[in-house]
Amino acid sequence: MKFKIGLAQINVSLIKEDNIKKAENAIESLASGGADMVILPEMFSCPYNTAFFPKFAEKEGGETWQRMSAASLKNKVTLIAGSIPEKDKGNIYNTSFVFSKDGTQIGKHRKAHLFDIDIKNGQYFKESDILSPGDSHSVIDTEFGKIGLAICYDFRFPEFSRKMAMEGAKILIVPGAFNMTTGPAHWELLFRQRAVDNQVFCVGVAPARDYDGVYVSYANSMVTSPWGDVIERLGESEQLMITEIDLDYIDQIRDQLPLLKHRREEIY
Amino acid sequence: MKFKIGLAQINVSLIKEDNIKKAENAIESLASGGADMVILPEMFSCPYNTAFFPKFAEKEGGETWQRMSAASLKNKVTLIAGSIPEKDKGNIYNTSFVFSKDGTQIGKHRKAHLFDIDIKNGQYFKESDILSPGDSHSVIDTEFGKIGLAICYDFRFPEFSRKMAMEGAKILIVPGAFNMTTGPAHWELLFRQRAVDNQVFCVGVAPARDYDGVYVSYANSMVTSPWGDVIERLGESEQLMITEIDLDYIDQIRDQLPLLKHRREEIY
Repeated sequence: MKFKIGLAQINVSLIKEDNIKKAENAIESLASGGADMVILPEMFSCPYNTAFFPKFAEKEGGETWQRMSAASLKNKVTLIAGSIPEKDKGNIYNTSFVFSKDGTQIGKHRKAHLFDIDIKNGQYFKESDILSPGDSHSVIDTEFGKIGLAICYDFRFPEFSRKMAMEGAKILIVPGAFNMTTGPAHWELLFRQRAVDNQVFCVGVAPARDYDGVYVSYANSMVTSPWGDVIERLGESEQLMITEIDLDYIDQIRDQLPLLKHRREEIY
Repeated sequence: MKFKIGLAQINVSLIKEDNIKKAENAIESLASGGADMVILPEMFSCPYNTAFFPKFAEKEGGETWQRMSAASLKNKVTLIAGSIPEKDKGNIYNTSFVFSKDGTQIGKHRKAHLFDIDIKNGQYFKESDILSPGDSHSVIDTEFGKIGLAICYDFRFPEFSRKMAMEGAKILIVPGAFNMTTGPAHWELLFRQRAVDNQVFCVGVAPARDYDGVYVSYANSMVTSPWGDVIERLGESEQLMITEIDLDYIDQIRDQLPLLKHRREEIY
């Protein structure tokens, strides 16, 4: 089966309404360009900094959620709505909501691995100061088959991707925002190797790079194939991209090199 | 702790005695160049083809084993003796023997994932036609700390490397012989990403490329760092290389980006 995914590498500003509007416009542009599924970046509604999360957080079903549901319905696309800070019972999560083309929520994923870094005399950034982690991986049934959803740092853990691939996910979709240290060092490598190991497509969607912003994202949104090739790669600026995914290619690769069949679960 | 590893990217001929002699010479050269640990390629004693395995197979303690034990003692090096076909109770394994610098066997690894490929109207090659698989990963204590040992296709499986890293292996050593399809596509990627995921050094040692040989090896023996950089990479011809490994660098990387601590075993 072939279908088209649209990647929205958009900027994130300090004003939530502007961010939502920008996402709505991107969804509309990508849908009118032929995208069947649209993917937004991590924290597309809110600057990526713990100080902003409480103020921007909304409950499931809140305004941003409603606008995204409406956008998927209006444009008839499956929507992987990047992520937003989600408020629930006094906790805040980094959450991705997924909508079918009729605007129904068909899944969600809460970032399960929080990015905490504390280098002596260096960088300090702890998501866990503000955020709570999700407690599960997320494989979601879409009209284009099963997708696995990971948010940024989740993708660092090979067990997590593997689990989703073993449950049938054919595409691993990763709203993410690597920084200017980890991005150049590891972003492409990671998307290529997770694709090779699991013989799936991998898609990373990041905010555009804004040197004046609260957070400088590496950007470089990317699609990799089950053979590990980079199919598409964006640069650093705001950009929308449509790529065709051919799910049959997964079967071809798995026939030729049956990695998943050759796993030896009993000895791991 | 710093120490020097020597990689022997040597050719494999049809004559076992020549192969053993070549390995002995390589060990001697690398040791006299300062190597503390020497690593030989997969199937260094025997052409990489199932037809040759039964004829070249030896028991543990057999002639090749004795010559390698003697070479480690004579040259005062820890020796990761690539691999050879090992005969045991009617089975044949693809086995790596490891010797300390006094010639004592301190560990062994039997390839646990056999490379079987059978493409319709295409390539047919099944190690399992002749070989039996090992039943375990192998973490071996050396005077330079714990090493994890994988043979070629074993390294394709992220669970296997992860298990060895979690048991304390600081270097994953992989005698391997990728072919001219999988090598250019995946060899470097694999050594870089396993190193990044597990924050360890990875070392791959392959036979040199011989277009007239029974098997055409991709070669490109390689050392990657816990940050995913390629520290050393050989070309296709016969070559010996000595590289310094600084195990303290692992701690630096793990302090800065504590991936292994951030694993969430309970949700995998």
